[in-house]
Amino acid sequence: MIRHALNNHRSKDFASWYQELISAADLAEESGVRGCMIMRPWGYGIWERMQALLDREIKATGHENCYFPLFIPLSYFEKEAEHVDGFAKEMAVVTHHRLTKGEKGLIVDPDAKLEEPLVVRPTSETVIGTAFSRWLQSWRDLPLLYNQWANVVRWEMRTRMFLRTSEFLWQEGHTAHETREDAVEETMKMLEVYRSFAEDKLAMPVIAGVKPENERFPGAEDTYSIEAMMQDGKALQAGTSHFLGHTFAKAQNIRFQDRNGDYQYAYTTSWGVSTRMIGGVIMSHGDDDGLRLPPAIAPQQIIIIPMLKENDGDEQLLNYCKKLKSEVQNISVLGEPVRVLLDVKATKPSQKRWSWVKKGAPIIIEVGARDMDAGKVSFLIRHQLYQENGKPNFHIMGVNEFADNAGKILEDMQASLFNEAKHRTQENIIENVENFNDVKKYYANAGKYPGWVKVNWARPTGAELEEIVKLLKSEKLTFRNSPIEDGAISGRCIFTGRDAVESIYIARAY
Amino acid sequence: MIRHALNNHRSKDFASWYQELISAADLAEESGVRGCMIMRPWGYGIWERMQALLDREIKATGHENCYFPLFIPLSYFEKEAEHVDGFAKEMAVVTHHRLTKGEKGLIVDPDAKLEEPLVVRPTSETVIGTAFSRWLQSWRDLPLLYNQWANVVRWEMRTRMFLRTSEFLWQEGHTAHETREDAVEETMKMLEVYRSFAEDKLAMPVIAGVKPENERFPGAEDTYSIEAMMQDGKALQAGTSHFLGHTFAKAQNIRFQDRNGDYQYAYTTSWGVSTRMIGGVIMSHGDDDGLRLPPAIAPQQIIIIPMLKENDGDEQLLNYCKKLKSEVQNISVLGEPVRVLLDVKATKPSQKRWSWVKKGAPIIIEVGARDMDAGKVSFLIRHQLYQENGKPNFHIMGVNEFADNAGKILEDMQASLFNEAKHRTQENIIENVENFNDVKKYYANAGKYPGWVKVNWARPTGAELEEIVKLLKSEKLTFRNSPIEDGAISGRCIFTGRDAVESIYIARAY
Repeated sequence: MIRHALNNHRSKDFASWYQELISAADLAEESGVRGCMIMRPWGYGIWERMQALLDREIKATGHENCYFPLFIPLSYFEKEAEHVDGFAKEMAVVTHHRLTKGEKGLIVDPDAKLEEPLVVRPTSETVIGTAFSRWLQSWRDLPLLYNQWANVVRWEMRTRMFLRTSEFLWQEGHTAHETREDAVEETMKMLEVYRSFAEDKLAMPVIAGVKPENERFPGAEDTYSIEAMMQDGKALQAGTSHFLGHTFAKAQNIRFQDRNGDYQYAYTTSWGVSTRMIGGVIMSHGDDDGLRLPPAIAPQQIIIIPMLKENDGDEQLLNYCKKLKSEVQNISVLGEPVRVLLDVKATKPSQKRWSWVKKGAPIIIEVGARDMDAGKVSFLIRHQLYQENGKPNFHIMGVNEFADNAGKILEDMQASLFNEAKHRTQENIIENVENFNDVKKYYANAGKYPGWVKVNWARPTGAELEEIVKLLKSEKLTFRNSPIEDGAISGRCIFTGRDAVESIYIARAY
Repeated sequence: MIRHALNNHRSKDFASWYQELISAADLAEESGVRGCMIMRPWGYGIWERMQALLDREIKATGHENCYFPLFIPLSYFEKEAEHVDGFAKEMAVVTHHRLTKGEKGLIVDPDAKLEEPLVVRPTSETVIGTAFSRWLQSWRDLPLLYNQWANVVRWEMRTRMFLRTSEFLWQEGHTAHETREDAVEETMKMLEVYRSFAEDKLAMPVIAGVKPENERFPGAEDTYSIEAMMQDGKALQAGTSHFLGHTFAKAQNIRFQDRNGDYQYAYTTSWGVSTRMIGGVIMSHGDDDGLRLPPAIAPQQIIIIPMLKENDGDEQLLNYCKKLKSEVQNISVLGEPVRVLLDVKATKPSQKRWSWVKKGAPIIIEVGARDMDAGKVSFLIRHQLYQENGKPNFHIMGVNEFADNAGKILEDMQASLFNEAKHRTQENIIENVENFNDVKKYYANAGKYPGWVKVNWARPTGAELEEIVKLLKSEKLTFRNSPIEDGAISGRCIFTGRDAVESIYIARAY
């Protein structure tokens, strides 16, 4: 039997496994500040990789980066009632601008109260919309295509690292368009950017679809999402793209002179993904030995560990490893130069090996004196860690052979992690359900980690939808989205009995 | 006489010129939120270039990026008295976590008061130090070498875009070391990283030196800075590197077991540069036609403007320009692929030209039908904009000739902007001053834009220094720093009459 690197295993206690992995892989830790985490270098390095890859796509689709204020005056939120209803419950509010010495120590200076409280941005529609209203004059100025990388704060009662933290990092795109069609096209374009980013870079298969009315972003006319199935069967909303119609244009007066000289409101969109995606990667690819990182987002793809012995031979071995590193660095993988780290820390080699296994480094090379003499390298491939007998599956190659093969190994790993997750997702989607009793039955009998159920529905709204959502909630279930790829369907709505118009996923969710 | 693109000229009204340039070059604008600005794409693009170049150096010197919380509990500031004295006057404080509907609209929910107020970070020594105290066990863990890119908030009474805003973007490095020598070495290493970054990338000559006692970072044992002379002769502190000694180690209990098994406090450092540097670039290189950007930090280095006429010939011209772009894109400049933009916006070509001149794009190409037919390009070089007769100085070259020369033109521009600023700085430094009366006389007679005076001093401290600082203040003067390169000197202190130990710069400052 294999003795895995983590104490908690996915099959037994998924939540504890998740927490242990984050700590064991040095991704993040609790900060001591309520609901806020510290992203450690390996975790932040994954975010930097995500940023670099996604930023390229955001720019390639014509958007420009900019930066808007962290603080939003309270009055900005009053202009859009639905929006503030959605966010007012969970915002950090700055009310004072100075501390002073009180009798018992440092206190908030009562003389330094702000005339108007400032909200720490939970999202930036209101402040960016206000700028749009200044910038926009004529149809010739459209579209406005902006994005920002920023921190946002939403006061959360129950937090979980990466998935739900009071402060998190994200990008938020904000655009304005001349016509409804243009804005809808933008919304769908960015949904597709997110889908391909999730699948091609994070190796995380997702369903791209439209959210039901009750799950819309506050103020949106339509919210689209990408949803991924985690290894415990739960759904993770990993990115959203909102068609905002005229909601914010009317609230913030985003108007322009159209081609006939008449004033019109612009149609706006917004879209975002966050550090939550790192949680998605962990729960998609992690195993009982720690994280497994898709090479595209691994901060380092190949780790070289010299088996130093604290004797005279070390210098020669180190030089050999440096030469190996510079040879391997010439490889190009997934369209970029390979990222190689030579780990020279003063730690035991076996500790280093397991530390990199837990961090999910794709290839871990160990080089000892014998390897050096034979001109060979011995290495682990992270997603094929064990032999059938349970021992570590070391591969041995000549240096040149390794240099010739490393690119292919990494590209295969990228594909393999995706295929594994895709297969698992497909295996755990139930279809052809006739009524809600079948849904209940499935969740009652599917064991510890049930998957998703895809049903036909008539897209009910308002009170009718609310009743159905209540029904789902009583079973701890939620609607995820109606997949774009299915399109219009025929059949009967399992809730209303009317003709169905689309399919929709039901799942337990993060 | 040349009719310049800006209404305000440096020689007449430097402050108005600065504001107009920021607006005319689309760098930033007031946000409507007190003391906070919006960084527009061209301004933010410059920051992205600075980040990319500096991040590379920070990583090359062994530091890793991470991310710490935006909020710092009030009690963290109580542990280090000197530090809080320096910052307590200007911090944004979060006291509540919810809004609610009051009688007259949205209000801060009185029921949602935080038990402990949270300070929006003005700098992160306290929160990072607390993490260091958890992470650090043994001398083997040292050094700790971290950096973060983040937003910080310091409540400012009088704000000026880029130079002094309530929220700004920066990087802050934080490190811990085994010995005093190691920490001092780190402090100086990062000062040198900043010096070479400012001079080699921003083309901004700086003086690297140590601050006098009264200008130290709150809690630092020594603060080093780079100081640059702006075109109005004022000094801009463009970056700082602090040797923190044991101050924060004692306040935050950053201890380790040393090589003998005894517990020791670690020595810490911190160092940072911010979006303030963009203000430095503007005031170093801007002219009466707008910004002039050193090619290393220009978001786009070559702009291609097709002289479209809204007729059938436009398509052919556009295709020609696309071909030109792809040919020029193969050029490598300053160690990177050249950045080329084809400007196809629906604006008049002459408007575009002046817009790019104001933005400071290094090379602006205009391509008309005649150029196309002759296989030529006609272009402006931003720092040599006019002929002697005051007309725009268009250069004409064949496409191949341009492709062969563009790299050299840009590299010459990078050097030329530096040399121009260096020459100006040197011309405006006065030395060999005998006493403070000479200093006063210089500032009384030097005209509108006086430079700096370098004097010998005995490095007084405490009350003696305070008196001298008061004297300077009465003349609106400040100490900048004591230049490293001068080292120990001989001579007499102009303030105390004692033997001088170093030289120090006196200047008006931002």
